[in-house]
Amino acid sequence: MEGMSSRISCPTLRTRVMPADAAAALIENGDNVGISGFTGAGYPKAVPTALHDRMTAAHERGEEFRIGLWTGASTAPDADGVLARAHGVGTRLPYNSDPTMRALINSGEVDYIDAHLSHSAQHMWFGFYGRLDVAVVEVTAILPGGLLVPSSSVGNNKTWLEQADRVILEVNHWQPREFEGFHDVYYGTALPPHRRPLELTEPMQRIGEPYLRVDPAKVVAVVETDRADRNSPFSAPDATSAAIAEHVVAFLRAEVAAGRMPENLLPLQSGVGNVANAVLAGLDASDFTDLVAFTEVIQDGMLDLLDSGTLRAASATSFGLSDVGVARFMENISAYKGRILLRSEEISNHPELVRRLGVIAMNGLLEADIYGNVNSTHVMGSAIMNGIGGSGDFARNAFLNFFLTPSTAKNGAISAIVPMVSHVDHTEHDVHVIVTEHGLADLRGLSPRARAVRIIEQCADPRFRPALLDYTERAWAQRPDARHTPHLLDEALSWHQRYLDTGSMGTDH
Amino acid sequence: MEGMSSRISCPTLRTRVMPADAAAALIENGDNVGISGFTGAGYPKAVPTALHDRMTAAHERGEEFRIGLWTGASTAPDADGVLARAHGVGTRLPYNSDPTMRALINSGEVDYIDAHLSHSAQHMWFGFYGRLDVAVVEVTAILPGGLLVPSSSVGNNKTWLEQADRVILEVNHWQPREFEGFHDVYYGTALPPHRRPLELTEPMQRIGEPYLRVDPAKVVAVVETDRADRNSPFSAPDATSAAIAEHVVAFLRAEVAAGRMPENLLPLQSGVGNVANAVLAGLDASDFTDLVAFTEVIQDGMLDLLDSGTLRAASATSFGLSDVGVARFMENISAYKGRILLRSEEISNHPELVRRLGVIAMNGLLEADIYGNVNSTHVMGSAIMNGIGGSGDFARNAFLNFFLTPSTAKNGAISAIVPMVSHVDHTEHDVHVIVTEHGLADLRGLSPRARAVRIIEQCADPRFRPALLDYTERAWAQRPDARHTPHLLDEALSWHQRYLDTGSMGTDH
Repeated sequence: MEGMSSRISCPTLRTRVMPADAAAALIENGDNVGISGFTGAGYPKAVPTALHDRMTAAHERGEEFRIGLWTGASTAPDADGVLARAHGVGTRLPYNSDPTMRALINSGEVDYIDAHLSHSAQHMWFGFYGRLDVAVVEVTAILPGGLLVPSSSVGNNKTWLEQADRVILEVNHWQPREFEGFHDVYYGTALPPHRRPLELTEPMQRIGEPYLRVDPAKVVAVVETDRADRNSPFSAPDATSAAIAEHVVAFLRAEVAAGRMPENLLPLQSGVGNVANAVLAGLDASDFTDLVAFTEVIQDGMLDLLDSGTLRAASATSFGLSDVGVARFMENISAYKGRILLRSEEISNHPELVRRLGVIAMNGLLEADIYGNVNSTHVMGSAIMNGIGGSGDFARNAFLNFFLTPSTAKNGAISAIVPMVSHVDHTEHDVHVIVTEHGLADLRGLSPRARAVRIIEQCADPRFRPALLDYTERAWAQRPDARHTPHLLDEALSWHQRYLDTGSMGTDH
Repeated sequence: MEGMSSRISCPTLRTRVMPADAAAALIENGDNVGISGFTGAGYPKAVPTALHDRMTAAHERGEEFRIGLWTGASTAPDADGVLARAHGVGTRLPYNSDPTMRALINSGEVDYIDAHLSHSAQHMWFGFYGRLDVAVVEVTAILPGGLLVPSSSVGNNKTWLEQADRVILEVNHWQPREFEGFHDVYYGTALPPHRRPLELTEPMQRIGEPYLRVDPAKVVAVVETDRADRNSPFSAPDATSAAIAEHVVAFLRAEVAAGRMPENLLPLQSGVGNVANAVLAGLDASDFTDLVAFTEVIQDGMLDLLDSGTLRAASATSFGLSDVGVARFMENISAYKGRILLRSEEISNHPELVRRLGVIAMNGLLEADIYGNVNSTHVMGSAIMNGIGGSGDFARNAFLNFFLTPSTAKNGAISAIVPMVSHVDHTEHDVHVIVTEHGLADLRGLSPRARAVRIIEQCADPRFRPALLDYTERAWAQRPDARHTPHLLDEALSWHQRYLDTGSMGTDH
């Protein structure tokens, strides 16, 4: 850690520095607590563990201690993970990928509200979630007058800092001090009927300020840390991901050739994970150039594109880098300034901006059905995986959206293409293009029946195609007056039930 | 009809006046045809019937004659109806409520693309639907230079007139000439990356022009008519609708009291039909005043509110009045000028505006499930009813949304609350409040499990509650590691199957 409190130049807030356990003592049973953090970046790294200890001690004394936990999106084992292990969370929103927390949601212990990320801040302002008692927000530095240099994500921090009764700041010396100037925090959003247009017409336009603000009088504690972000490992694309990427790149090339988009495309949004990184690698290897991203997360693949010049610049709300990516970013941080901008997730995912800019959205899925409905969140209809995140914000308002997935999971036991999805996150009205390693189904302007043929023939694993076609044909034949979206209701979800019963959706195992 | 061509003051276009059959002869097999019309208002009244005759004659000669039919939304028996009866439609978008057309969609003859109304125009510009060969658009009058006074709906007319290769205009003398000044047609929308903010911050603000424009060189025919709009009958609220309305009004009153919205609420959107009209009647009988509507359709109920002063003004894209409503509107038309504004459906339903203005959305549904997913379009999962229309545009981006329905249909044989909906149009992430005659379920900030309790207890018909609770409890018990949204997949759709098999969802018949 650098010299004590070297990053706290506000004299008032310097007096509030204390150890994490003293800060955690200011959080009470029943509080709603809004913490920073998005894709494992910029979450508080000391207070959650201290709070875990406080909760555990209370539980050992036979006392109740549970909080409502609100975040930007996913955090890390030392935030969501420790609080879940303390059994100290009653409700959780708006997105989670922590396995310990997920298990408690799926066991019924934690009530999870899975919200569109562009909605979470405004639903809090609207009073839909109740009062926010405490904000715990990681920052890079504290300037005089309550100005805060944000850290590696912005997420919902503006809202938590504004709305909370009490604020705890974590100043993380591990975050590069050079972050100052990488952020654009918009303070113009009002409540209806006082809202104004968002005057942003280019992804890299600044419409806000480089700092978060906090009322110093609300800051009850400042804790100093020196710990790295979660930094999930990043693996090189496998053959399946590379094949998916090839289909996407070829399709984009054809769209440009058909005159449906400019040569440097339109702003790109890319979900996280290896398939998304493979698509970025595919774009980097292509002759596309001068691209721009309007997205949620800067992952390793985007650094490649920025370095090669394929990507001119990227607007997001968070980093989501590997250890290697972080090292690389920190080494060349001055070269990225002005080419990377982090915004509040309310703005990075805003429907108004996504539609205006004409974003090309690329997101993963868990399963799609033959008629083009997409499930992004639920395993076999009941268990949550992570949450809808920003996929709905982007896909619903995009110029063009892609949903990307390997055609099978669990070594072929699960088909990603099913007769009927077991949960719908993106409706048939909203899905443009589905891609697997086998091919790409362009669903634009097609009726449900026409979509079925295309999805089965282009995307399904060949081993599942005959059964999918057989279902489609029998559904068509069964009710001659119900052929808009023909389904056999007593069989529509039988693939999932078979998986639960036998460990495979197929009948040939 | 008034004096011949008295409403065509453009000398060039006066030379293009011809009978409907001569105009219909300019439409060819295979053409995509974009017609005017929204909620049975402002559709062409002569050319479709003439085209029906042309199609029928071709079919009798053994020749193929089918068109792609694009509209604003629903039209009427003498537009959708006659073309369906001629078996002359291959594809249809974006919304239909004509029973003859519906039967052909459900028989598999017509390919139907059920699109969000805020998307239909832009997806056409983006090239997703292919080329538009002909536009057939009803207008009130033709001014010099290709300026057109729109009629009782605007819908997608701007787009059809701009994009079509050939244009046929129907000048309808039945439409009041006083319509001039009732419209605001926005001509500022560009394709990405050239889009600008929509600078509208108040529902009644004018951002466009009172006229549609057409290039006179593209106008191949002008047909004069003198026929009334469809004008569906309007019935007074029954006890069920009145009970639903009471719950909504009480809830809004409580929201104001809780400080979550202003005393004159926020802009209202209201779907069509008797439940919607009942809610309007409920608002009219309440002490709410100075309200404003930002909606799709002006129906009879809105005239009541405008007359009483409960409603200050209304922005929409169309009228949807009864015969009585039309007579009343025409009698006092000058009093409504400046208080009613019709816009393109791209603008009336625009996500950017719906979110900015903070619209309160009220729409019907076919069924909702215990976890808050809503089906607005499909009967028993397979057969289309009408289409999603604007419900997704409004609900997804609203400040607050309501979904309204009687708790049962078909004399109690169908429960509007089911274990799992057979089709999803509005996902669990997007549904705020469900209302039946029994009560109101406020789902904001609730997990799926908490929603289930509330929906069953507040909204379900008491006769179906035990079976719904039993399902919920058995689903909870079945898989202790899958309790986020517990479902029994082999039973989830069994209520629908039972209805198909026995004529009732209940087991007590």
